[in-house]
Amino acid sequence: MQDRAALARELEETWHRDIPLAAAMRIAVQSYDGRTLTVRGPLAANRNLHGTAFAGSVFSTCVLAGWGAAWLAWREHGMNGLIVVADSKIQYRKAVTGDLVCLCAPDSAAVAAALEEFRGMGRANLSLDCTIDVGERRAVTFTGTYVVQAPHH
Amino acid sequence: MQDRAALARELEETWHRDIPLAAAMRIAVQSYDGRTLTVRGPLAANRNLHGTAFAGSVFSTCVLAGWGAAWLAWREHGMNGLIVVADSKIQYRKAVTGDLVCLCAPDSAAVAAALEEFRGMGRANLSLDCTIDVGERRAVTFTGTYVVQAPHH
Repeated sequence: MQDRAALARELEETWHRDIPLAAAMRIAVQSYDGRTLTVRGPLAANRNLHGTAFAGSVFSTCVLAGWGAAWLAWREHGMNGLIVVADSKIQYRKAVTGDLVCLCAPDSAAVAAALEEFRGMGRANLSLDCTIDVGERRAVTFTGTYVVQAPHH
Repeated sequence: MQDRAALARELEETWHRDIPLAAAMRIAVQSYDGRTLTVRGPLAANRNLHGTAFAGSVFSTCVLAGWGAAWLAWREHGMNGLIVVADSKIQYRKAVTGDLVCLCAPDSAAVAAALEEFRGMGRANLSLDCTIDVGERRAVTFTGTYVVQAPHH
């Protein structure tokens, strides 16, 4: 198992280097404990014309958090996969009035099953939920279906 | 009814001035014919680590196209509304390998009903579909539910 802090740094560097919009969003990996990934984007870079978080920034933060959680799970198991999102849905319940703080805590059994599928088939589907709260209240709920493929599948 | 080209320019200027991510995406209003709004974002500003369009840019382009189509419909009828997206879902069927070109062509009857609801209640819901094609094939399907409120409702 690799050092988690180093993996989290590599994830953030990958986003900033290879995804111009992630750099523009100034997205950062705030923490990763082996299950829960927390990413943060400052409001200033992600605001809309109402002064709250832009719906596109909110979605992008969530889709990256899910992608990152899958990437970290694969890397922690010594594997590389090409990860893409297939479908997603998002509910905006409340306006996000401060920095975007998005959590993704994949279900351990679902990750284990997807890793086993990937080892056997070179491909796996993984559904991931991400959330953003404002204060004590849920502001955003996101669900994305990710497809992970072996690099030369 | 105002000049459509002037309205389309105002829409694009609003996005670039008030939404930093829209400016970073270099999103442009390509055309508006009174019903179909077409917006475009260059691939270079919106790529991911696979060299195709970033899922967050794809979503943001769609959510702005829907927002813009509602904004234009309201402005063409001489009204101002605060427009926010409530829920949305997106299907990524194919990778977008070139510039993002997104169409939103609201159903005229649905817009007329929403405008009437807005006039009476100061508030209306409007569901809008946006699509992105690659060549002749559908690559992305987006559906968003927008809420339009009178400014001082």
